[in-house]
Amino acid sequence: MRTILGICGSPRRDNTYLALREAGEGAGSVEGADFRIIELRSLRIEPCRGCLRCSQEGATAERPCPTHDDDFGPALAASLVEADALVMASPVYYGSVTGLVKNFMDRTEPLLRYSTSSLQFGLRNKVGGGIAVAGNRNGGQETTLQAIHHWMLIHDMIVVGTVSDGLPGCYLGAALTTYPVGRRPKAVREDTLGLAASRAVGRRVAEVASWVPRAAGRCPSSADGDSFR
Amino acid sequence: MRTILGICGSPRRDNTYLALREAGEGAGSVEGADFRIIELRSLRIEPCRGCLRCSQEGATAERPCPTHDDDFGPALAASLVEADALVMASPVYYGSVTGLVKNFMDRTEPLLRYSTSSLQFGLRNKVGGGIAVAGNRNGGQETTLQAIHHWMLIHDMIVVGTVSDGLPGCYLGAALTTYPVGRRPKAVREDTLGLAASRAVGRRVAEVASWVPRAAGRCPSSADGDSFR
Amino acid sequence: MRTILGICGSPRRDNTYLALREAGEGAGSVEGADFRIIELRSLRIEPCRGCLRCSQEGATAERPCPTHDDDFGPALAASLVEADALVMASPVYYGSVTGLVKNFMDRTEPLLRYSTSSLQFGLRNKVGGGIAVAGNRNGGQETTLQAIHHWMLIHDMIVVGTVSDGLPGCYLGAALTTYPVGRRPKAVREDTLGLAASRAVGRRVAEVASWVPRAAGRCPSSADGDSFR
Amino acid sequence: MRTILGICGSPRRDNTYLALREAGEGAGSVEGADFRIIELRSLRIEPCRGCLRCSQEGATAERPCPTHDDDFGPALAASLVEADALVMASPVYYGSVTGLVKNFMDRTEPLLRYSTSSLQFGLRNKVGGGIAVAGNRNGGQETTLQAIHHWMLIHDMIVVGTVSDGLPGCYLGAALTTYPVGRRPKAVREDTLGLAASRAVGRRVAEVASWVPRAAGRCPSSADGDSFR
Repeated sequence: MRTILGICGSPRRDNTYLALREAGEGAGSVEGADFRIIELRSLRIEPCRGCLRCSQEGATAERPCPTHDDDFGPALAASLVEADALVMASPVYYGSVTGLVKNFMDRTEPLLRYSTSSLQFGLRNKVGGGIAVAGNRNGGQETTLQAIHHWMLIHDMIVVGTVSDGLPGCYLGAALTTYPVGRRPKAVREDTLGLAASRAVGRRVAEVASWVPRAAGRCPSSADGDSFR
Repeated sequence: MRTILGICGSPRRDNTYLALREAGEGAGSVEGADFRIIELRSLRIEPCRGCLRCSQEGATAERPCPTHDDDFGPALAASLVEADALVMASPVYYGSVTGLVKNFMDRTEPLLRYSTSSLQFGLRNKVGGGIAVAGNRNGGQETTLQAIHHWMLIHDMIVVGTVSDGLPGCYLGAALTTYPVGRRPKAVREDTLGLAASRAVGRRVAEVASWVPRAAGRCPSSADGDSFR
Repeated sequence: MRTILGICGSPRRDNTYLALREAGEGAGSVEGADFRIIELRSLRIEPCRGCLRCSQEGATAERPCPTHDDDFGPALAASLVEADALVMASPVYYGSVTGLVKNFMDRTEPLLRYSTSSLQFGLRNKVGGGIAVAGNRNGGQETTLQAIHHWMLIHDMIVVGTVSDGLPGCYLGAALTTYPVGRRPKAVREDTLGLAASRAVGRRVAEVASWVPRAAGRCPSSADGDSFR
Repeated sequence: MRTILGICGSPRRDNTYLALREAGEGAGSVEGADFRIIELRSLRIEPCRGCLRCSQEGATAERPCPTHDDDFGPALAASLVEADALVMASPVYYGSVTGLVKNFMDRTEPLLRYSTSSLQFGLRNKVGGGIAVAGNRNGGQETTLQAIHHWMLIHDMIVVGTVSDGLPGCYLGAALTTYPVGRRPKAVREDTLGLAASRAVGRRVAEVASWVPRAAGRCPSSADGDSFR
């Protein structure tokens, strides 16, 4: 059994959420995959202040951030560490993920290599893919997917795209658009290309996650970290 | 006289602020340029909820967002519209701008072409450049500068880099690092390359801004917008 | 009078060429703009060998590359230096410009700041915009436009996007697709959105080029280049 | 036993080659990994003409391109298909891979999903990582690594970065620079940070490749390709 966590980064429950549910369909086609969605819009996540206290003062899963006592701890930190794979889905705001998603990303610092907490290496070796939904046809979906991948690679994750046998619309991940329908709720229902790509991302993430040995998760690398100093 | 607005996107007053002050030095070397800094860390800016009410309900400079009554209105909207150029400076968090900066970017929606308010086209034809400061040597400075440029181009701004006669460290804008000193306050003081690039960005932005005719600002384009529908 | 040079980076004369002709239409709507197209497909341009002889041995406009005696010199170098603005148009091959375009870009080294030839600063202060045409809907147009911008900023050019009053399809530049028609010649004729964006890029480039003072061209910057070393 | 193929995209045998050899060291630390290098500089690879004959006319491993009878076929195509993982190393030329590398990338079309040859899906499920070497400190290493990743994801590869327990210099892959030594042969020998990152990339690619089941290679996906049409 592998758990795939879909993170919905829209402040609204509409198009991005629909796309992410399709990813769940795709993941469901892989044996032993369990998919569930967390919506960031219903959580309060303060912007990171860059104080680095989480790395220095021994953060915990219950209280990963010594500065902000908000929903990142109880609702997110443990779920992230327990998951085997992530599908990060975001509307495109100004060529990248939403502020909601960025605030979330920035707060994952206690899961990074620099952490002194039990959350250290919290996302290492997990498999990740992205979904981006824009009002314009070529409205920043690609750069948003790259921003998602960048965050994933910083966390030592393994990145996949939209494996397909046909034209997937976008190779980096699922790229959806509400064009030409307009920025209306449910508009992506018309985007059959983008919805198929969302399914492909979900399936791909689940497939590759099934190959990663359980023992691999969160191990420190064999590298001599000091050589980077 | 041209006003260059430096926007500091760090939650702390240290390395990014120091880099931005160097940009001010550079801008100051261009005749008729006036430089001032706004620090986002001292403002409360809620994440955009994507409700699009700012486009639909007639936002004003005093209250640009019908949903959030926070510091974006009184402290930022009018200053942005009045400026002739912007230098956007951000620490690199997970390969892109900070959540603080992203929240700010997302909230500039009432200044966009889709706005029905007096803020419409609020950043059109302004000149822009970027500064990015990272703890790693190649820790996302380039992708952060591209994210800044993307936001600027969405606003129909004019984008410039680090014009120089020598090796500028980075051509996209100023790329600074606190490596190998470590993520300490003032660590960029050791990064003479990055500080020189910051001055170059400030000077370049001021230079090109001096070429843009005052009348150009905020004019609707001559394009038939309908042709994009 | 300002000369806008359209560079067509397709190995074939079809979709990218059609898009670039639209950019010419757009440029033509700006008073005093003269637009002409150079097609790379009809030129022989060898890949750069990285020997740096062009920087070290005094290249000339007639023979900009001491190593390769091909079409870059007679057909391109002088035209680039004489132009006031560029529109670079490329099909998307594997998420970026074609090898044809990349070979061209790499060979512009004698026009760079490090050159010891009369071509030095050959593209500085010119205005630039991009056009990208892909078979997939979100098939790398954005990353191709960013690659074009990156090359332009390295040459100290001034970068613009697709200024518009409506939804331009892509804000970074013109993004066209042959989807869902298929990768057939002339398929972009169906892409009214992309063709309108191409016109917008041509017009924008011509507009901003008309603001850049003639005297600005190719001046060394006022920066102390030594400060970068 | 897994074969990791290091592709050296420099027209010269110096810094990029040295970095790639370090990746070989890293790969060698993983049991059962076999590493070998192909240098593109010693091969003649013509730019792709976009004729699509390789997809339409039944290319073969011996003659993957019906148009160009050059070194791509005998020297490269079969080696690519047989490898389990790739490390792509390129000097940074104008913010991206060299023309040499781009010509190579463009010519891998017969290995893509659209191919009708025995080379179809030739790179699917292989693991990939990147190395980029620039003369400037922040001179395009990140965007070059993203360009490499983009090509890999188009080929349905699995992308990894520089897993480490310390500051790796760059998280996207190995980022090296010859600054401040200067663009001299062997200059990267001074860049201990970049060389350590190169070893990390080699090791990471070999590690993840050891997890991918042999049977996974080149299988068509379970997706209904038609749904993308």
